[in-house]
Amino acid sequence: MKGKFFGLGVGPGDPELLTLKAYRILNEVDVICMPKSRLERECVAYNIVRPLLRGEKEIVELYMPMTRDAEILEQEWQKGAATILAFLRRGLDVAFITIGDAMLYSTYSYLMAKIKALDEEIEITTVPGITSFAATAAALNIPLAEGEERLAIVPSIENPQKLPEVLAQFPNVVLMKVAPNFNEILDVLEAEKVQDKAVLVSHCSTPRQQCEYDLERLRGSKPDYLSLILVKQQGRWL
Amino acid sequence: MKGKFFGLGVGPGDPELLTLKAYRILNEVDVICMPKSRLERECVAYNIVRPLLRGEKEIVELYMPMTRDAEILEQEWQKGAATILAFLRRGLDVAFITIGDAMLYSTYSYLMAKIKALDEEIEITTVPGITSFAATAAALNIPLAEGEERLAIVPSIENPQKLPEVLAQFPNVVLMKVAPNFNEILDVLEAEKVQDKAVLVSHCSTPRQQCEYDLERLRGSKPDYLSLILVKQQGRWL
Repeated sequence: MKGKFFGLGVGPGDPELLTLKAYRILNEVDVICMPKSRLERECVAYNIVRPLLRGEKEIVELYMPMTRDAEILEQEWQKGAATILAFLRRGLDVAFITIGDAMLYSTYSYLMAKIKALDEEIEITTVPGITSFAATAAALNIPLAEGEERLAIVPSIENPQKLPEVLAQFPNVVLMKVAPNFNEILDVLEAEKVQDKAVLVSHCSTPRQQCEYDLERLRGSKPDYLSLILVKQQGRWL
Repeated sequence: MKGKFFGLGVGPGDPELLTLKAYRILNEVDVICMPKSRLERECVAYNIVRPLLRGEKEIVELYMPMTRDAEILEQEWQKGAATILAFLRRGLDVAFITIGDAMLYSTYSYLMAKIKALDEEIEITTVPGITSFAATAAALNIPLAEGEERLAIVPSIENPQKLPEVLAQFPNVVLMKVAPNFNEILDVLEAEKVQDKAVLVSHCSTPRQQCEYDLERLRGSKPDYLSLILVKQQGRWL
């Protein structure tokens, strides 16, 4: 019998923010796979789950390049899917771990699709995870959205020049992984007069958590890769 | 010494989707408070955590009316905050439980603000929870958003006539608690030609989970209160 494949969202950083379900599955599977880019010394997702692991596991790093080159990505996802499929066909259960939620800006969704395409019979279970923005709102005691307010989630690699149209429609905006375009984003927030209604948080829920309400102080610097900006245009939260 | 106040997001329905942190705190506090409207026979959040409770607890229902009348709401939140504060001042630790995430469309954020306003000294810890939309994406193995795609979260009570402007800007849209305006929402999705790119899910992650890809079949009916619609305009997921 073929093994089962699990995608586990392991949350933003604090091991206690795993769900009971992800924790159980993590300790039931035979193999744990994780994404690894050439630049990282260690996998962030693995550092989160490491204190929760009981007993011996086969730990497998799958190379996931930090590139937007579709051909390279396709190739590496195929390789990753093939590696996982080989375990599954030996009857081993495999979990792929990913930070935050498994279905939001995650490599897992691509891998899952590849595995499905290669072998329709494989049983796939996805376990949702706490997102960095939910953890940020909780850490700062700031609501993400209340009542009739909308919430927009905007990924980092989007062109910051498109932000004004989002800010015009959404009182609450989460900008994810803001490091690459940080100074451009600052310019837009300033031009839109919402700079004092924004907060930047890095490594939320971990001992390295940093929080900056005065974004101007960070101009010229490059925030850590795992940083987000929460913009709240209404209310008196910030 | 005053007790500590905790806000716990208990997730969408499956008790296993609580975080390890919420689970620990739930069993450490002296008092568990929960929202209760006159219409409900039982509190949804309490049904989620009930199988996880170890030992005796004081369980307190706080009346939270299902109304948009600001005066009535203000009054009831004040009463709820006063009830909680009385426990805290006796040195008891209190957890308020809420479905989904604690900081997204939750009564908790109002209560927390009231308690803070009444007594600045109270230590408040908010624990994020799995949202219904993250659980839906996981259950259906559909990504909420990938790569450069934005994601919009839109609460139910918004006027459906405003949806076209959201759909024009966001490839992925979550419509929360769609029951009250359901047929009007259907009209908009049809007019915008995205009806076949939408799925309705109720009671996600519970034994009552229901999923309907053919929304037209539901016309004229009223979906359950805990229903959402996920619209994916791009890709071949639906």
